[in-house]
Amino acid sequence: MKITEIKFPRMIMGPGSLSRLGAEAARTGRRALLVAGKKWLRESGLLEKIVSDLKENGLEVHLFEGTEPNPKYDFIDRGGREARDRGCDLIIGIGGGSVMDASKGIALVAAQGGSIWDYVYYGPDRSRKPEKALKIILVPTTAATSSESNSSLVVSNPEKKQKMPVFGPPLLPTLSIVDPELTLSLSPELTALGAVDTLCHVIEPYLTSREPQFLSDRIATSLIETALIYSAVAVKKPDDIYARTQLSYAASLALSPFPRAMREGGLRLHWIEHVLSGHYDSIPHARGLSLLLIPWLRRNIDSFRRRLEDLSDAIFGRADADFFVEKLEEWLNSSGLTGRLRDFGVREEDLEIMASDVEELYRWGGGDGTEALEVLREAF
Amino acid sequence: MKITEIKFPRMIMGPGSLSRLGAEAARTGRRALLVAGKKWLRESGLLEKIVSDLKENGLEVHLFEGTEPNPKYDFIDRGGREARDRGCDLIIGIGGGSVMDASKGIALVAAQGGSIWDYVYYGPDRSRKPEKALKIILVPTTAATSSESNSSLVVSNPEKKQKMPVFGPPLLPTLSIVDPELTLSLSPELTALGAVDTLCHVIEPYLTSREPQFLSDRIATSLIETALIYSAVAVKKPDDIYARTQLSYAASLALSPFPRAMREGGLRLHWIEHVLSGHYDSIPHARGLSLLLIPWLRRNIDSFRRRLEDLSDAIFGRADADFFVEKLEEWLNSSGLTGRLRDFGVREEDLEIMASDVEELYRWGGGDGTEALEVLREAF
Repeated sequence: MKITEIKFPRMIMGPGSLSRLGAEAARTGRRALLVAGKKWLRESGLLEKIVSDLKENGLEVHLFEGTEPNPKYDFIDRGGREARDRGCDLIIGIGGGSVMDASKGIALVAAQGGSIWDYVYYGPDRSRKPEKALKIILVPTTAATSSESNSSLVVSNPEKKQKMPVFGPPLLPTLSIVDPELTLSLSPELTALGAVDTLCHVIEPYLTSREPQFLSDRIATSLIETALIYSAVAVKKPDDIYARTQLSYAASLALSPFPRAMREGGLRLHWIEHVLSGHYDSIPHARGLSLLLIPWLRRNIDSFRRRLEDLSDAIFGRADADFFVEKLEEWLNSSGLTGRLRDFGVREEDLEIMASDVEELYRWGGGDGTEALEVLREAF
Repeated sequence: MKITEIKFPRMIMGPGSLSRLGAEAARTGRRALLVAGKKWLRESGLLEKIVSDLKENGLEVHLFEGTEPNPKYDFIDRGGREARDRGCDLIIGIGGGSVMDASKGIALVAAQGGSIWDYVYYGPDRSRKPEKALKIILVPTTAATSSESNSSLVVSNPEKKQKMPVFGPPLLPTLSIVDPELTLSLSPELTALGAVDTLCHVIEPYLTSREPQFLSDRIATSLIETALIYSAVAVKKPDDIYARTQLSYAASLALSPFPRAMREGGLRLHWIEHVLSGHYDSIPHARGLSLLLIPWLRRNIDSFRRRLEDLSDAIFGRADADFFVEKLEEWLNSSGLTGRLRDFGVREEDLEIMASDVEELYRWGGGDGTEALEVLREAF
């Protein structure tokens, strides 16, 4: 059994919790850089409301908008300089996983200096260690990446065609406010994609660890079930706040230590996807996962069989690994999330390059070039 | 839906994690008061080992042993003075719930002054608010009270015949180290009693909230199942480290916000038990719970029926509230935990006094004198 370190940020969760932001931010800092995406927050009128709430609570607020999907290192570096130049002591990130990850990176670069790319993890002692960051408040507007509850981020480097993680205690948010009302306007597609991300965060460590851990496994199963059931509900009824709440809560726990405490197991499928969207910036993370998930499960079905049977038994009452994979495929199909890599602009000649990148860049995390090539070919 | 605030301490968990104590304590403080119980830690030889580990890591260590079950306010006050006089900056509590609660109280009194009894919660604005405490490291040696993962404690006052909680952010441990190996030598009785405490922490808020919350409910169900299954295993095979690990993990999550996020519901049975062992110091907390649990469930079976059916369906595959209560009773019986209050020295003439104490002292938490009297009479 593995010794597990649990670090979960302070979190205020539930419909309406966004109303706590102003007062909480005022307790946390004085001068905030507010990081947002490209359009939604401003166009929905929410940005204006939030800024005036923050100002009424005595904060000085500087905006840093325009975060793109798969956020780039130079955007984060620019944000870090901006935060430093403005004398900010707090980064507030309101958006999806890209905005939250960018916010963490900005908080790190502003406090410790350098470029965020200096900190990406290539293995032990192969990069600079995050030691300090500005305070971070995150407000997810999707139910997907779990960035709000952990101390890592993912950053892209288009020149190197790499998308890599940064890990470190200073990246744990000081506070996260998880208000499912912010996800009510997500499209059916983004809703389903978020659930795929949640599901993969849980199912990858679950399947790649052969040793059961009763309680961790039960929590993992509950999260997977929540993603499956309530994404289907929210896709059909986008304004169902109960379903949205289940999805937001599940997303926040998915990449926390709770569903994998005392277990081995890692994120092998995620590493393949990181390489894929490192090479193809037009493929957002969860879309990549949804294209790779079924090929990954089928490729590994023999070694995953016991674990898949348990999962299938607990969720569908039938201990059958193939049946479980079929059910997952149906679920992806019903949300229009299946497809082939070639339909998303991937070139066949890149498959081998990507597979060898998985091996080279993610060896520390169990990245396996042979597996990657087989999965990429099947998904192609 | 209720807005939920999650605060979970940093936690290092798993068999062997005690080995991290020295280095972690050295990162946290310089002069530690080590709080322990009456015998076990010293007699097992563990105390000596821990003290030398702490000293090797450069800490100055002062011992404060002798914590009794249902720890008394004057013991805690004395510990607080001791910590202050010695210039301690860190309280390390190694033991069961009483030791951990006493440690929290000592950390508070040492830093903020006064008596721990000034801080007990009688309702909003009726007591002093905890504002600061010394750093706290907790190492549970039972799987029971969840004190290692929350920011409350319970303290007894024999003169007033009261046992009351103290709540406050400074009582959250700086770090908890949950090493299931420390529970291997627990007697079958203490093992089963710990599981009763875990079960009650989860089932009380579950049953007293009528509104379901899918994911919170699933987590709650998993914790209850873990307590039922693995206490039975550990009672028969005390050295089963896998079972012990499940019980320790379940205990640590039981009184955290995770199994009750976004739900209403409280600890109504706990309040009755607090009054019971406030009046009868010879009845330890979990023993009191085990005597009251079945009468409490039977008394409320109509209002709990829907929730009990769901629970029974999820755990035993049969949606039947009465069946579930019978199964719980069997489980208590099989561990020798059922019995009558009168067999534990309770006097019939005290039942009404205790019931009115429940109403008076715990009204803020839903304490109900009528319910308490019926439950106490039935349990008598």
